[in-house]
Formats: sequence, structure tokens, C-alpha cells
Amino acid sequence: MEEVRLIEIKEEIHSDNTVKAKQLRDSLSKNKTFLLNLMSSPGAGKTTTILKTLEIIGDKLRSSVIEADIDSMVDAEKIAAKGIHAVQLRTGGFCHLDASMVEKGLEGMNLKDFDLVIIENVGNLVCPAEFDTGAIKNVMILSVPEGDDKPLKYPLMFTVCDVLLVNKIDYLSLSDFDIDAMKERVLNLNPKIRIFEISSKTGEGVQAWADWLTNEVKQFTAQ
Amino acid sequence: MEEVRLIEIKEEIHSDNTVKAKQLRDSLSKNKTFLLNLMSSPGAGKTTTILKTLEIIGDKLRSSVIEADIDSMVDAEKIAAKGIHAVQLRTGGFCHLDASMVEKGLEGMNLKDFDLVIIENVGNLVCPAEFDTGAIKNVMILSVPEGDDKPLKYPLMFTVCDVLLVNKIDYLSLSDFDIDAMKERVLNLNPKIRIFEISSKTGEGVQAWADWLTNEVKQFTAQ
Repeated sequence: MEEVRLIEIKEEIHSDNTVKAKQLRDSLSKNKTFLLNLMSSPGAGKTTTILKTLEIIGDKLRSSVIEADIDSMVDAEKIAAKGIHAVQLRTGGFCHLDASMVEKGLEGMNLKDFDLVIIENVGNLVCPAEFDTGAIKNVMILSVPEGDDKPLKYPLMFTVCDVLLVNKIDYLSLSDFDIDAMKERVLNLNPKIRIFEISSKTGEGVQAWADWLTNEVKQFTAQ
Repeated sequence: MEEVRLIEIKEEIHSDNTVKAKQLRDSLSKNKTFLLNLMSSPGAGKTTTILKTLEIIGDKLRSSVIEADIDSMVDAEKIAAKGIHAVQLRTGGFCHLDASMVEKGLEGMNLKDFDLVIIENVGNLVCPAEFDTGAIKNVMILSVPEGDDKPLKYPLMFTVCDVLLVNKIDYLSLSDFDIDAMKERVLNLNPKIRIFEISSKTGEGVQAWADWLTNEVKQFTAQ
């Protein structure tokens, strides 16, 4: 098991977040490190999706995970148990990550050692959508048990994301989730979003998403 | 279908929320109106639980629902379609309700006409836990697909609630959710919390919760 580094977030800086996020993105581009910001409701399957994705990607990319949590280390420990480099950001009461917090998570890492860093944001469909973390791409998970009406109720999250992972499709048989209606609602908000249907538990559909991500990172690092 | 009143929240007032919440609670007590604040992640089943609960309670109590949503009226319309008095609070970007917003929702209602008012808070396990809404009781839903580790990751929410409804128990057969481990984690944080296991979809367990709530409201209004 990899050792998990724990970083406590003590204060929040709002005012210059846009500037800070741009600086961070510039530094990531210079170091050819692809930062992916993964957002969702609590329990939509962020950690399981990260594990399954990195299992498929394997040594095709040098990967690291920054786990944000209000008050535990369980996710980072799960990641590290698989031998993957993991950092735990303990956010105290904060309900989202901003660029300064992500920068803290990256401190102590040599960016040149990593092609891909995935941030698991705080489980929340509202606040994280409002803060640029400095990521190259924003990805969200909507899980089937949450319902097909979420794009109507949390539109900003669906608008700021480049990719939507529809997770827990193994629950579709038990659910009245209307996947076509959901997609129409999402594409209405954000016509450019990429949608992948996956089950991180059974592995269904994860290969296509992992291939897409690997390709994006390779294009980015080749620039 | 009842007509839904829509109220837009324009500004947020933090500073005197504790005072405002106490004033609101005093006014509710005077009018014998039991205010229940229902919180959960997005998609845990707040609206369905409210509908099932009020269906069982029927005319034993005079009930109303205040629906908070960032940007839609779908929930209030579902409630009103059942002939239940409903108010829609559109919160703009706000990720939680405070006492001033709830007071806005109650404006225009004659409190003496209602024994029970249920507020459906914004879907979010983080921010709503930090704001006293003036409610008499705080209730949260944790749904089975979210996972049994949520008390470790969102401890404040489990600490501030009087009741935990474990919803979607019809998903247990598909899930590795450990209900005993979850309960132990919750009771560790909050030994006084009442826990009901329900499925708002199938109706399983909802009667016991609805009976408990009816009894609480009757005791409160008899004071």
C-alpha cells in the first residue's frame, strides 16, 4: 500500500480563484500533467470509478489521485491500497474545492512524474460547479438511483462539465430512470458534453471511457 | 392540482441566522405549526418520501410542503398534483436554506391552518447541515445506493439530525451496503438519533415513520 499524505485545509480564498486557477492550469500545461476534476453527489461512485478507470489504464499513464473529504481518509486509503499514489485533502467544513486547495494537494508532488492527476471533489452537486479548480477537464458522475431529473435541478453542474459518466447502469432494471429523457435534458444544457454509460461495479462500459481519457491525456502530454 | 406559489430567493443573510431561526421557532410554537426540515443528497428520495408519508398521514394532520430547488419547479408540481398545499422556493445558486429563506416560504400562509409543514431542503449533504432553518425537527435521508460509509464522510449532517430515514431498502439485494456497520457509525456520532428503514417506492417501513411523525406533531400541537 502506498503511503497517504494528509493535508488539512485551514482557510478558503475566494477572491482571486479565477486568477489562481489560470496560473495552476498554465503550470500543469508546462509540466504536461493532465488534471481531471471529478464531481458528483455523495455516493454516486467517484472512488469506485477512479479505481476501475486506473485499473484499466494501468501503466499506460503515470497516475495520481487527490481525494477531498470533509472528515475522513477512507477514499485515499482505498486508492493507496491498490498501489496508486494518493493524497488526502481534508476540507474541514468546506463543501467544494477551489484552485488554492488543489494547489495544496499538488504541493510536494513532482508534476513531471505524473501524466494524469484525478481530483475527487467533495460529494456535492451544487457548490463544486461554481469553482474553477485549475483542471484541464471537468467530469461528473450521475448515478442511476439519483433519478433522471437531476439536470433540471442542478443545471450548472451539467453545464460546466466536459464529460458525464452515467454510473450504476446495473441498477437500471430496478429503476424507472429514463436514460433518453435524461440525455435530452443534459444535451439541452450542454450540447458538447460527452456521455458514457458505465457500471463501475461490474465494469460495463468503463473501457470506452478509460480509452477516451487515455487518448485525451496522450494528446495533451504530446503537445 | 393545487396551485404552486413560486418564490425567488434574491439574497442570503448569514449574520443573524441563529437569532432569526429562534424567532421563527417561537412563532411556529405559538401557532402550533410543526416545521420539519428534510435533508439529503440529490436523488436520495426526498420528494417521493414526502408524498408517501403524507399519503399515509392523510387528513390526520393539515400539511403543507415547501420545496427548495436551485432552478426548477418539478418537485412542488409533483406535490401539488396530489392536492397537497405546496410552495416552491427557487434558491438561485444557493446550496442550502437558512431561516430567512424558510420565513419567505411561510409568508402568505396562515400558520394556524397547518399542523405540519415539511421543508424539502436543497439536495446536499454538506451545507444545509450548517444552517438552522427554524425547524422543530431535522430529518435526513440516506439512500442505500449512496453507500454505508456516508456517516464517516459527512459527519455533521448525521450529528444535527433527530431522525435518519434509510431509504431505498428495496435496493439492498443489489448492494453491498452493510446496514449494521452504517448504524454503528451513525449512533457513534449521534446516540439519540431515531433510525427508520424504508422504501418510499414500495412503501415498506413508511407506516412506522409516518406514525412516529404524526405522534410527534400531535404532542407538539397539544402543548
